Amino acid sequence: MFSMFNKPLKIGLVGLGKIAVDQHIPSINANKNLKLVAGASPNGRPQGIVAYPTLDEMLKAHPDIEAVAICTPPQIRFDIARQVIAGGRHVFLEKPPAGTLGEADEIKRLALAKGVTVLASWHSRFAPAVEAARKWIAARKLKSVKVVWKENVRQWHPGQKWIFEAGGMGVFDPGINSLSIVTRILPDAVFVKKADLHFPGNCDAPIQVEMDMVSGSVPVRAEYDFLQTGIQTWSIYVEAETGETMNLHLGGTEMEVDGKTVIKEKEAEYPGLYAHFYDLVRNKTSDADFSPLRIVADAMLIGKRIVAPDYIE
Amino acid sequence: MFSMFNKPLKIGLVGLGKIAVDQHIPSINANKNLKLVAGASPNGRPQGIVAYPTLDEMLKAHPDIEAVAICTPPQIRFDIARQVIAGGRHVFLEKPPAGTLGEADEIKRLALAKGVTVLASWHSRFAPAVEAARKWIAARKLKSVKVVWKENVRQWHPGQKWIFEAGGMGVFDPGINSLSIVTRILPDAVFVKKADLHFPGNCDAPIQVEMDMVSGSVPVRAEYDFLQTGIQTWSIYVEAETGETMNLHLGGTEMEVDGKTVIKEKEAEYPGLYAHFYDLVRNKTSDADFSPLRIVADAMLIGKRIVAPDYIE
Repeated sequence: MFSMFNKPLKIGLVGLGKIAVDQHIPSINANKNLKLVAGASPNGRPQGIVAYPTLDEMLKAHPDIEAVAICTPPQIRFDIARQVIAGGRHVFLEKPPAGTLGEADEIKRLALAKGVTVLASWHSRFAPAVEAARKWIAARKLKSVKVVWKENVRQWHPGQKWIFEAGGMGVFDPGINSLSIVTRILPDAVFVKKADLHFPGNCDAPIQVEMDMVSGSVPVRAEYDFLQTGIQTWSIYVEAETGETMNLHLGGTEMEVDGKTVIKEKEAEYPGLYAHFYDLVRNKTSDADFSPLRIVADAMLIGKRIVAPDYIE
Repeated sequence: MFSMFNKPLKIGLVGLGKIAVDQHIPSINANKNLKLVAGASPNGRPQGIVAYPTLDEMLKAHPDIEAVAICTPPQIRFDIARQVIAGGRHVFLEKPPAGTLGEADEIKRLALAKGVTVLASWHSRFAPAVEAARKWIAARKLKSVKVVWKENVRQWHPGQKWIFEAGGMGVFDPGINSLSIVTRILPDAVFVKKADLHFPGNCDAPIQVEMDMVSGSVPVRAEYDFLQTGIQTWSIYVEAETGETMNLHLGGTEMEVDGKTVIKEKEAEYPGLYAHFYDLVRNKTSDADFSPLRIVADAMLIGKRIVAPDYIE
């Protein structure tokens, strides 16, 4: 084993947009067990990375790449993942893991058949307060859960036209982060009972969503808004049957118990994710839980479509 | 074993609408291994069946019921299935198995935990030519598959308002039958790449759909229309790389090879389904493949929504 792991795992990055530059590149560079060899993108040429126009060209120039992280828009992840797996390389999938559940299932199947690692990453699960929240909940019988995820799309997703295209998921793109936390901290499976989906007249994905879910017998309400100006909210409010409360704020970086802040830490989600990926590769295993994507697909399946005003960035 | 099965399996029916009357009741009555004990429905009172307003009342009056067939609209199947399984009874689910994939997964999990049989029934898989089609395909490399499923909603779904409500699935209600055949006869997993979903302005489910799927490297195109007057079409056209063709017509009752009809039989789908259900119960196993529902959810997830004229029955 040692001989295999005394050298860092060689990683290639496909998709060199905002999330790659903001998170993937610095997180890989900061991890001594990993080495960022090269990147691929039709346009992006971030500083300090050798970049190629396509995955194929990147792999031809660097056949020693052992793992590929895929940070493209979700609609094209499947074909890239299939090619990566076929070459016997490990796959790190940005969230959501694929454009559809069918594609996600197929990626998992192919990786298993080929004996490579697949990580369907959900970065919010690595927020500092998530594990403490899970333990708080495990010790109690819950009364209700409420998710409020409201952000300004113009601020956080500038120029990301794909997000409002068919399959781009709209406000579910951030909303799925809350679902990745909820499915991690609640002990029972979570499923959708009702959803109101507000589609701008000129968009193919929702800009606001109100959703009623259930986990065991606990009602779970979610409110997503992509047009929030002023204070931005990424909070989960949990109430126990005893009346005790536990709230997560700022995407899981803060935890409040009965109104008192008990955790308040700087987020380090992507470093945590890459450490997890390295462990999975070393242990020859995978982490591919698609339940947050399944919830979104179910919401789109049974949701009521409501026409909202046109969205112009 | 014999002592358990010398008496017929006692069945209760929940939901006494069109499909129960047209198919379930006669199929159960015609099978000597099964006995229809009672039914439950808020309104339906078909001739020749003892009926109760609710599942609960039916089970209280007939605690000897061993299995329950659920033929309600999909939106309420989950709660009924959960109650049936909790009582240690086997479950026969009409298609689609539940309102959402999350609910379907949970039904499967609960049934497994309780040790009862669950059948997620797909009646079209029991059409007379389906098995022959599967064998024809298994022996060939395919070039393309095309599904054309066009029927008149006013003729086949009179008064079924739920079909155009949120979660009612619209033209996917018959379309999912074609998907249940396609996922049975093709050797590789089928997934959606693109879908155009035509929603009437006054409905919450699509009335027409064009969908591009793929299975392995074979393109699979589907065209669904709920406004087809005149000739009704439920056909699947398969072309092999050699140029040979195999077509299924009338929902799988007819098979045509290279333009020549080779199978043309009266359908007996529900008798086949109930024989299958009885075998599953006897063998203490389940049949719960949700891939047709997963394809519909994926289509709703990534599909482009197009506004169609209002639908008035």
